[in-house]
Amino acid sequence: MSTAKATTSLNDSGLKPSTILASQSPDKTGPLDPEQLRKIHAYWRAANYLSVGQIYLCENPLLREPLKLEHVKQLLLGHWGTTPGQNFIYAHLNRVIKEHDLNMIYISGPGHGAPAVVGNVYLEGTYSEVYPNISEDEAGLKKLFKQFSFPGGISSHVSPQTPGSIHEGGELGYSISHAFGAAFDNPDLVVACVVGDGEAETGPLATAWHSNKFLDPITDGVVLPILNLNGFKISNPTVLARITHEELEHLFLGYGWTPYFVEGEDPETMHQIMAATLDKVVEQIQKIQHDARIQGNATRPRWPMIVLRSLKGWTGPKVIDGLPVEGTFRAHQVPLSVSSSTPPDHLEQLESWMRSYKPEELFDERGRLLPELAALAPEGDRRMGANPHANGGKLLRRLHMPDFRDYAVNVPAPTAVEAGNVHVLGPFLRDVIKLNENPRNFRIFGPDETISNRLEAVFEVTNRQWDAATVANDEFLAPCGDVIEMLSEHQCEGWLEGYLLTGRHGLFNSYEAFIRIVDSMFTQHAKWLKMSLELPWRRKIASLNYLLTSHVWRQDHNGFTHQDPGFIDHVINKKSEMVRVYLPPDANCLLSTMDHCLRSLNYINLVVCGKHDAPQWLTMDAAVEHCTEGIGIWQWASNDQDGEPDVVMACAGDVPTLETLAAVSILREHLPELKIRVVNVVDLMRLEPDTEGPHGMSDVEYDSLFTKDKHIIFAFHGYPWLVHRLTYRRANRNLHVRGYKEEGTITTAFDMTVMNDMDRFHLVIDTVDRLPQTGSKGAYLKQQLADKLVEHRRYIKEHGVDMPEIREWKWGDSK
Amino acid sequence: MSTAKATTSLNDSGLKPSTILASQSPDKTGPLDPEQLRKIHAYWRAANYLSVGQIYLCENPLLREPLKLEHVKQLLLGHWGTTPGQNFIYAHLNRVIKEHDLNMIYISGPGHGAPAVVGNVYLEGTYSEVYPNISEDEAGLKKLFKQFSFPGGISSHVSPQTPGSIHEGGELGYSISHAFGAAFDNPDLVVACVVGDGEAETGPLATAWHSNKFLDPITDGVVLPILNLNGFKISNPTVLARITHEELEHLFLGYGWTPYFVEGEDPETMHQIMAATLDKVVEQIQKIQHDARIQGNATRPRWPMIVLRSLKGWTGPKVIDGLPVEGTFRAHQVPLSVSSSTPPDHLEQLESWMRSYKPEELFDERGRLLPELAALAPEGDRRMGANPHANGGKLLRRLHMPDFRDYAVNVPAPTAVEAGNVHVLGPFLRDVIKLNENPRNFRIFGPDETISNRLEAVFEVTNRQWDAATVANDEFLAPCGDVIEMLSEHQCEGWLEGYLLTGRHGLFNSYEAFIRIVDSMFTQHAKWLKMSLELPWRRKIASLNYLLTSHVWRQDHNGFTHQDPGFIDHVINKKSEMVRVYLPPDANCLLSTMDHCLRSLNYINLVVCGKHDAPQWLTMDAAVEHCTEGIGIWQWASNDQDGEPDVVMACAGDVPTLETLAAVSILREHLPELKIRVVNVVDLMRLEPDTEGPHGMSDVEYDSLFTKDKHIIFAFHGYPWLVHRLTYRRANRNLHVRGYKEEGTITTAFDMTVMNDMDRFHLVIDTVDRLPQTGSKGAYLKQQLADKLVEHRRYIKEHGVDMPEIREWKWGDSK
Repeated sequence: MSTAKATTSLNDSGLKPSTILASQSPDKTGPLDPEQLRKIHAYWRAANYLSVGQIYLCENPLLREPLKLEHVKQLLLGHWGTTPGQNFIYAHLNRVIKEHDLNMIYISGPGHGAPAVVGNVYLEGTYSEVYPNISEDEAGLKKLFKQFSFPGGISSHVSPQTPGSIHEGGELGYSISHAFGAAFDNPDLVVACVVGDGEAETGPLATAWHSNKFLDPITDGVVLPILNLNGFKISNPTVLARITHEELEHLFLGYGWTPYFVEGEDPETMHQIMAATLDKVVEQIQKIQHDARIQGNATRPRWPMIVLRSLKGWTGPKVIDGLPVEGTFRAHQVPLSVSSSTPPDHLEQLESWMRSYKPEELFDERGRLLPELAALAPEGDRRMGANPHANGGKLLRRLHMPDFRDYAVNVPAPTAVEAGNVHVLGPFLRDVIKLNENPRNFRIFGPDETISNRLEAVFEVTNRQWDAATVANDEFLAPCGDVIEMLSEHQCEGWLEGYLLTGRHGLFNSYEAFIRIVDSMFTQHAKWLKMSLELPWRRKIASLNYLLTSHVWRQDHNGFTHQDPGFIDHVINKKSEMVRVYLPPDANCLLSTMDHCLRSLNYINLVVCGKHDAPQWLTMDAAVEHCTEGIGIWQWASNDQDGEPDVVMACAGDVPTLETLAAVSILREHLPELKIRVVNVVDLMRLEPDTEGPHGMSDVEYDSLFTKDKHIIFAFHGYPWLVHRLTYRRANRNLHVRGYKEEGTITTAFDMTVMNDMDRFHLVIDTVDRLPQTGSKGAYLKQQLADKLVEHRRYIKEHGVDMPEIREWKWGDSK
Repeated sequence: MSTAKATTSLNDSGLKPSTILASQSPDKTGPLDPEQLRKIHAYWRAANYLSVGQIYLCENPLLREPLKLEHVKQLLLGHWGTTPGQNFIYAHLNRVIKEHDLNMIYISGPGHGAPAVVGNVYLEGTYSEVYPNISEDEAGLKKLFKQFSFPGGISSHVSPQTPGSIHEGGELGYSISHAFGAAFDNPDLVVACVVGDGEAETGPLATAWHSNKFLDPITDGVVLPILNLNGFKISNPTVLARITHEELEHLFLGYGWTPYFVEGEDPETMHQIMAATLDKVVEQIQKIQHDARIQGNATRPRWPMIVLRSLKGWTGPKVIDGLPVEGTFRAHQVPLSVSSSTPPDHLEQLESWMRSYKPEELFDERGRLLPELAALAPEGDRRMGANPHANGGKLLRRLHMPDFRDYAVNVPAPTAVEAGNVHVLGPFLRDVIKLNENPRNFRIFGPDETISNRLEAVFEVTNRQWDAATVANDEFLAPCGDVIEMLSEHQCEGWLEGYLLTGRHGLFNSYEAFIRIVDSMFTQHAKWLKMSLELPWRRKIASLNYLLTSHVWRQDHNGFTHQDPGFIDHVINKKSEMVRVYLPPDANCLLSTMDHCLRSLNYINLVVCGKHDAPQWLTMDAAVEHCTEGIGIWQWASNDQDGEPDVVMACAGDVPTLETLAAVSILREHLPELKIRVVNVVDLMRLEPDTEGPHGMSDVEYDSLFTKDKHIIFAFHGYPWLVHRLTYRRANRNLHVRGYKEEGTITTAFDMTVMNDMDRFHLVIDTVDRLPQTGSKGAYLKQQLADKLVEHRRYIKEHGVDMPEIREWKWGDSK
């Protein structure tokens, strides 16, 4: 490809764009007059210069003296390849922002674009406002350069430290999802989203193009994807750069976009084509929005997107040591090694590369960008680095909350009523939606489980947002709605993150086993929050709330693959300043917990609770008290009131609580002299020492609940060793945890606990085993229960449901 | 869409198929004569009947008596929606297998297709061969029905229990990746892969369509995707069913396929169109293979695929309780509830639904499929349920292995030489490739990191397999090669799993932080292995081997987001029968470890080791001995030879080993009277009790290494609490673990350990703190080291590299 060109797709059909670019010929005419062209090219050179400077220099930032080895960092780290393309895009977006007074933010999808984004945010003045130490002069430039990929400085990928960013350039694949999350309910916002062709190979990015079926042109803003095909990853070519132009065009038409192609090498021609394309694209966007908002056109629009095919490491060294570099994979990281052990001409080559941008024509004597160039950037909050949407806490409005107590289940006595815990939550969430509709400030995301998880009450007041076709018999679909569902946990997580990072609130509701699909996305978000807390200028955002149902203990037709409670383990490996795990034992506790989570800021809250009908334990007052403490003795179930217990029966999770209480009732019937204390845990982080995390308990508190030496029989929702990991520093080592041990297949609810030795009978047997004082009575009880287990196995194999005495057990029956 | 039709894409262009179907008109003519049509329709009815029977019945399987409530299971669980479509496909695939003598396996991508797959494997006779108890008669049918979605029975999704399956229908999204993994290096194989339109929304599936750029038409087999658009997920429509036909066509042309559309409702018409389409598609495949293999046509082919648009719950109840069901989301699971509490006409409706398939015309008196229908299925290993590729262990050939000792680093003394551990592995892997080339039996998969991870030696003998375009300056790309790289961890994992499950060997090489992208895929594979071990007819397959470099302790230009050692935690939560975690401290240990992993079967081996140049500790002989034990005292570094030590300095991982040894040398210099024992751990599972897993140590062994009560200062590669979790049952509670604590940004290698208190200075300070006997000498040393830490921070902030005394430290220097 040697000539620049700009083409669009086939014309004059419903599927294809209705207009084409004026400048399709490979000449240099276009919308920019010579002066504009000169200036935008100079701005790009300035950004490129800053990018190279960041990668290489620690001294002599303006090359005011001949470059010497001691001006070059000892360890050269960073990524040049993606940089010039992003600098090119940023300069041109600045132009259209000014031209059309756009409210735009910038998402940098390619992996390591920090030299570009940081450089541009510096050029527009935002960087020095946020970090006054990095001033707009030679001294500031020197610090800007040195801090890059340097201990105590900044990474080669965009991070929370970068003003204007809501997207960590760490793990690849989520730029488009984040962009759409930002665009939802921000009708004036344009989210420019640069996608790398490496990133485009990831699964999450490949499905994220379909986000356009979930965007409402009336109430939402717009995402402008710019796919930068520079052709290479680390050392491989990229797939999308190596299919035919026709295939690429088909692909994006198939995804429902109108692709505009900007392709070439010659900078002047490319400036003209890019400017013309952006003008066209902005016009298209405004036309679509006008048609939908003013004309009421309700058909799903084909939004425009740009494919920018440019050279990897564009304007960088063409050949190094005899090997081609510009436009090849060799431009990916630091293309030119410069140190005392490299050939001396490398230093010269670096100098002439940097001087090719003519810094003396770009920066004034103090080292500040020339005013005529600085004038090219937008001003104030219109600067992409300063746009408040990219520091969402600035725009955060707290939720209007209904009183969760109004949704309580009436619990006259423990187990007197049954309810589906999550089912009870439905009306509460419905009213959260209703109270935060105008303007919308809260959304629920999930793969397709709002109804399956029994939250159908929300559809009394809202719909699923869906902009693709509908047919008779569809339910709860509308172009605008507060629930968004697509069968991609990646998309749901990415959309929600983008929504939160731009200052709104939300909830991810899903299955426990499959939330692990987003393990690594969770990690990236947790790290984002942790770093943001260290940056005073980043305002707090709403918490990321997970509601996981269809959990490990109740699988019905699902088998072994649907069982994995390990997301809890994953979550608590992150900084305890920002993660919380809640295991409400019943519906009233769930209401209290969810109210707390939705009000909180800067946490990641994980709530695990079942949806099936199950016994209810606590009145709302008791639930509020219990959840406020996060852990507590259930006095009504205990009989150790006059002293230390003989045994502590602890539980965390709805099914473990049921089995524990049933075990306690068996023990109290058959061994009434045994003093039993029941401890229930809602807030898992309470178990860790207060020296380890803010919710942790002191040893005194812990011992007052669990005793210093009595046996603790602990039934736990997750993997049993997690409780050991949280409590390994405690004095009481007589801790016996039952939990999920990777045993299960198709089972009944109770049978699932049997397979993992966490059922009531095993818990009783465990207790008796630990307490020699139960003597022959204990031994007899064990034998009875062993027989029960045989009977149980025979019964479920015959009937496929739990034995009646299990299904119908009530607290107090046998005590 | 009320009339059936079959269309193909636009003709007569490079991008489009070169032929179209004969039968494009919506009539009922086609390749099947009336008798064939009658039979294939009867076969489909039989499969549908078995599917409904599995979901509903526990008695009266052939409806020989009027249906009563007691014939119906008490708890109705299962998924009807996807079933008739898959039954339709399976019957038609059987036809072309017989017609063309195809070697074909079947992958069931939609979530819950077990009623279809199990039913078909039963009809073809395989099921009864594998499970003689489920015989081909009325008694067998009754058991077949009852076991489905029943405790102790089988799940509603396909699982290892299903003969002919290599793909768990648990988590969605990996069918196409698995299919390609199976097709690699199996030139005669056709992998029919049914993709659900729900599954198609997942990220991994959305990028997996690009797998066609990595398939060699000469040396690999072929994947035939059949996208079954039945239009709905649980309660939402699907995206791909609700875009225009034109968009869908564009999408698959863009992905590089030739889509053939089979659309309609009328069974007879659909049979004809499906048969004609499959004939055409098989012809296309054979032509492409002929062109490539015989004619030597090297251009990337456009393989055919099928889009089957059929009704969800096709042939099931049209209306239930006044609501439409067939062709709506309501057909997803159990469409018709039947119990004592449902309207009585539901039982009647179920009976008439089942009788609509006319079982009396399908099964003989004994309850066996009529011979004229049974004859429609292929025979022997050609049956998709019996094809040995789907029980890969049957075809497993052990690897030819070079002697890993030949690749040893010569280590005259500890730290006398430096080497990149993974770099040393390169030549060994190169020769594994060379020895297993013909026929190819080993492959390396990774996102784009073979060179970045310094395994470039493999490219001396092979290439990256790449069938998209190439240009000048590309390196190591060829249509056929042993390395496959795409920037999607999902694809790499899925391809490798498919490759292993069909009886071959392989390695996934990647970055530590981003392997978490496939956390949930790992879980699904681990569960597959665990269940397979319980099925004697499933033969053992080669282990899934992960090599993770670019680990948490050495990040260079990458920042905080690139740091997560938690994959280890994730792995060891699975059954210890099948997971292994290795942390080789140096290159010779890595060689020994990798040799072991590549020879092993049915494990998942996780190997974490750095790529940067680092000190080498052990000779090859010592390394072999050490790795064989998995854990051991490094006598040469210890000075407790004449009794119990004062302190145990333990380490696991290459960087922790370096810091520990450096700390030991400081301690031995400054506090020579201190008796120090150095314990190094290669095989992490050695730490757990022998009662918990096969590699676990007894308490006696453990205490003999770690003592019963001496302080253990343990430097660990991962999160520190993991070591506590593995050792919480041990007597010695004086365990102090240092590891990654979620602290880091851009740092030097040493600085990264400083930030997490795992550097040599902190380890020394820890030790002194625990040992009051070190007295004032210890206190003085602490002060010195605290000063060093200040100096270090100043130095790296200035120079960006570690202090010379850190970089240049050698064992023995200061002792």
